[in-house]
Amino acid sequence: MAERTDNGIKARVVLQQCLHARLQVKPPDAEIDAEWVEINRGMVIYICFFKGATEDIIPKMVTTLLNMKLCETSTGKYTSVLELPGSVLIVPQATLGGKPKGKGMQYHCIIGKDEGLKLYYTFVSLCQSELSTCQKTDTFTEVKHGTYGNRQVLKLDTNGPYTHLMEF
Amino acid sequence: MAERTDNGIKARVVLQQCLHARLQVKPPDAEIDAEWVEINRGMVIYICFFKGATEDIIPKMVTTLLNMKLCETSTGKYTSVLELPGSVLIVPQATLGGKPKGKGMQYHCIIGKDEGLKLYYTFVSLCQSELSTCQKTDTFTEVKHGTYGNRQVLKLDTNGPYTHLMEF
Repeated sequence: MAERTDNGIKARVVLQQCLHARLQVKPPDAEIDAEWVEINRGMVIYICFFKGATEDIIPKMVTTLLNMKLCETSTGKYTSVLELPGSVLIVPQATLGGKPKGKGMQYHCIIGKDEGLKLYYTFVSLCQSELSTCQKTDTFTEVKHGTYGNRQVLKLDTNGPYTHLMEF
Repeated sequence: MAERTDNGIKARVVLQQCLHARLQVKPPDAEIDAEWVEINRGMVIYICFFKGATEDIIPKMVTTLLNMKLCETSTGKYTSVLELPGSVLIVPQATLGGKPKGKGMQYHCIIGKDEGLKLYYTFVSLCQSELSTCQKTDTFTEVKHGTYGNRQVLKLDTNGPYTHLMEF
């Protein structure tokens, strides 16, 4: 595999566009059905933090991600999820920090659970406040997110995922 | 954003696990419905080639991807898609080669269309032959793939996408 200098990367994000996405936030148990969140048109953000990531990177991450022109308008041009406007589904995805070793993946570089959880909820909270202050139309948009540490059971419906990788 | 040395990367792949995935391979026109391919349990491979990629990287890519232990068995352990055994859906995704510049993405590093198409179909063909020679059980598995250059209208159903990034 290609050698790459990963030094300095604090967070890795994969972005996909969706028409509808549905994510389990609480698994079912013997007595209660699973709980789900869902969004309609918008962007799915899969996110992973690496060791060394700190809260000061979150504002720039959120501003960058929510303002990248990755959402297709009805005329075929591209605009940001804030301008579209669309909704956002945030999916914690520690596996994105995996490094191949032999036939398996190693996850030595990802952040510890407590720190990661804190960064994750700071990220979610800032996305929510950014989206809520940027409501420019009557279109209803919202930020939904997965439960950190859970299995992320996801159903995705796209008109082209238009998958992008971004690192911070 | 974090600086990273991309030198030497010839291909970028994002992998997701699925219970079911459905991909449009021919858009609808006035007279004919869209055509779709689908797989049941297995792995979705989103793939992008960069400038400088050549056919000699394909065998190692295919061997590595199909043998990585990323598929969960019924006992919660991880095995390869060949061993599971599962199916494979290959999605050409040139956007994975995008680099952020300002609020937009630039795609200067991705391979030219003709070369990319050739590499893509070599990759698909080798995945097909590897999977067909590794049928160890009565479980039916297959390789399906998107049409290079088309919009990849995708519907994905997962029990956890378990998203991984790999570069070659």
